[in-house]
Amino acid sequence: MPYVMVQIPNTPAPTSPSAPRSVPTSADVARLAGVSRATVSYVLNDTGAVRISEPTRRRVHRAAEELGYVPHAAARSLRAGHSRMVLMPAPPVPAGPLHSQFVHDFQGALSRLDYTVVQYGNCGLHGDEAARAWAELRPVAVLVPGPGLGPRGVAVLKRSGARAVVTFGTEPVDGAHALLTDHAGVGRGAARHLYARGRRRIGVVVPEEPGLETFSAPRLDGAREAVHGLAGATVTALPLAYTEESAAALAARWRDLGLDGVFAYNDEYAMLLMSALQDEGVRVPEDAAVIGADDLMLARLLRPRLSTVRITLPSGRGLAELVDRAVRNPGATPESHELFDATVVQRDST
Amino acid sequence: MPYVMVQIPNTPAPTSPSAPRSVPTSADVARLAGVSRATVSYVLNDTGAVRISEPTRRRVHRAAEELGYVPHAAARSLRAGHSRMVLMPAPPVPAGPLHSQFVHDFQGALSRLDYTVVQYGNCGLHGDEAARAWAELRPVAVLVPGPGLGPRGVAVLKRSGARAVVTFGTEPVDGAHALLTDHAGVGRGAARHLYARGRRRIGVVVPEEPGLETFSAPRLDGAREAVHGLAGATVTALPLAYTEESAAALAARWRDLGLDGVFAYNDEYAMLLMSALQDEGVRVPEDAAVIGADDLMLARLLRPRLSTVRITLPSGRGLAELVDRAVRNPGATPESHELFDATVVQRDST
Repeated sequence: MPYVMVQIPNTPAPTSPSAPRSVPTSADVARLAGVSRATVSYVLNDTGAVRISEPTRRRVHRAAEELGYVPHAAARSLRAGHSRMVLMPAPPVPAGPLHSQFVHDFQGALSRLDYTVVQYGNCGLHGDEAARAWAELRPVAVLVPGPGLGPRGVAVLKRSGARAVVTFGTEPVDGAHALLTDHAGVGRGAARHLYARGRRRIGVVVPEEPGLETFSAPRLDGAREAVHGLAGATVTALPLAYTEESAAALAARWRDLGLDGVFAYNDEYAMLLMSALQDEGVRVPEDAAVIGADDLMLARLLRPRLSTVRITLPSGRGLAELVDRAVRNPGATPESHELFDATVVQRDST
Repeated sequence: MPYVMVQIPNTPAPTSPSAPRSVPTSADVARLAGVSRATVSYVLNDTGAVRISEPTRRRVHRAAEELGYVPHAAARSLRAGHSRMVLMPAPPVPAGPLHSQFVHDFQGALSRLDYTVVQYGNCGLHGDEAARAWAELRPVAVLVPGPGLGPRGVAVLKRSGARAVVTFGTEPVDGAHALLTDHAGVGRGAARHLYARGRRRIGVVVPEEPGLETFSAPRLDGAREAVHGLAGATVTALPLAYTEESAAALAARWRDLGLDGVFAYNDEYAMLLMSALQDEGVRVPEDAAVIGADDLMLARLLRPRLSTVRITLPSGRGLAELVDRAVRNPGATPESHELFDATVVQRDST
C-alpha cells in the first residue's frame, strides 16, 4: 500500500502580528499524556481495534481537552480510505418551500444513519469539471440535482471513491442511480385539465428568473404535448418575471393575447398573475382559468381558491435509505425511481 | 515540523463481489507519466512554487485523465495546513424565502472570492459538542446561526485553525465576530405600530413549529417591551401551527379573546391567520388589525393589503467581504454589525 507524507505545520507562519496560537496536534496530546501518537489516535478515533486501559484513555482525553485538540476529519478519512460524507451541490436557484422542506427532512434522515450531509455551491463549474471538483472532496455518495452530469462525470466520481452517485433529472445517466423528476408530466397534467375544463387557447408561464429553465422547459413541452392535435387547442409561452410590474404588464395585454386558460408554472407565479388579472378586471375563472403547481398552503387561501398540480415528493427517510443501500452495495445495478407524483387538484380558479 | 503517515489504501477490501475498481492514486499517475510523485503534486495542485516544463505538465495531465485521477482536497488542505472551506451549519428549520435568497447570494459571493461554502446538518449536536464536530472539518471560517455556541466553542474552533468565527444572534459571543439579529426590534416595531393605530389588546403569534422559538421568543419579548407601561395596553401570546385547522381554531375564539390587533410573527402566518379571520367574519382591520413581517411579495397581493415589518438583510457580497477580511486578519478585534434593519410598512390591514 502506498503511503503519502502529509505535512501538518504546527507552527504556521504568522500572517499578522496577532496571528492565532498554533493549532495543537496529536503529537502535542501524546507528549502531554505521555503516550505514543498511535495511542492518541486509537483513543480519540475510538476505533475499538486496539485495547487501551481506562486510565490511559482518561489521560489522553484530559490532555486533548486541556490543549483544545480535536481530531482532523480529513486525516481520519484519508486513513480510513473513505468518508461518510454525502455531497449535495447547492441548487442553482434559491430553494423554494417544497425543496427546503425536502432537503431538511433528507438531511435529518441521513444524519440518523450517521452520514454527514454537505451542501456546497457549484463554484460556477459545469458537467465534468464540476464532477472533478466534487470528487476532490472524496464523498462516499453524491446527489446531483438538475442536468449537466454525464456518464463521464459519474465515472470520475466513482473512480475517486464515491460508492453511490444519484442524479435527479428527467433522464437516467449511465452508471448512476436515477430519481426521475417528470416535469413534463406536471405540464401535461395542467394542460389536460384546462382542456377538459373547455379551455382551448392555453398560456404557459415561463419564469424569466435564471436557473428555472431546467424545470420550466419540460413543463412547457409537456403542456404542448398534452394538447397536440386536439381540435382548436394552442399553447402560448408567456415569459413572466416574479415582480408585480411584470405581472401587471402581462395582465394588461391579456385580452389582446386571446387566451382563456393559463398554467402559471407554479403556485407562486399563479398567485402573482391571478392577482394582477383581477386588478385588470379579468375574471378568474370565467375569462381566464388559472392553475398553478406545488399545492402550497398559501395558495389555498386565495379567492377564488387556486387549482394546482400537487407534487408529492418521497419521504426524506425513504431517499436516505436508498442512498445507504447504494453505499453498501456499490456494485449493484443502478436503481431508477420516479421522484414525484403529480395529481391535479381542482378548486375554484379553473 | 511533524509529519503524519497517512495511508491511502489503493486496493480497498471489497465489500461485495462487485465492489468498484480501486481508486487511482497520485503514485499511479506518477508511474504512468514516468515522473516523481512530487512532480504530480506540483502540476496538479498548480502551486507555481516549482518550475515544471510544459511537456512534463502535459504528460502528467494526460496520465491523470487516462486514470481518472483527481487530487484529494483533504490531503491538499492537510499539506497546506488550512482550507478555503467556509462552514455554515444548516439552519434547524427549513429555510424561509428570505433566508434562502440570502444564503444563495452569500454562497455566490464567497465562491467568487474562491471559498468553498459547505453547509451541513448539525447531526443533533449542540453547543461545544457541535463546535468540536465542526472543528474536525478544519474550516477556515465558520458562520453559526442561532444560539448555542459559547466562548468555549469559539475557542475550540480557533484552536483547530478556524481564522474567523462569525455568529448570528441577539448577543455577541466572546472571541467571535457578531452579526446581530434584532428580532426583539421586529416585535417592538410591530407592537408600537399597532399601538399607534389605536390598538390596545395586542396578540402576538408564536409558531408551534419546532426550531422557530429562537426567533419568536425575542419577537414576543420586543412586543411586550414596546407597550410596557402604556395605558390599557396588553400583549397576549397566541400559539399557532402553520395549518388551516390551527388558524381556523384561533379565528373561532377570536371574539372571546377580546383582542383588537395582532402581530402574526411573519407574513406567512399573517396570510394564514388573516384568511381564517375573514372566513370567520372578523373584519380586518376594523375588528382586528393584522401586521406581519418580512415584506414578502405575495403578502402584498392580499386584500386588504398586508402591513408588515420589512427586514432588510445586508448584501451577500458585503457579508462575504467581512468573512474574507476576518480570514486575512485572524487577530483583529471582533467586529459587530447589525445584520438587519427593520422598518414598518403600513398598508391596509392595520
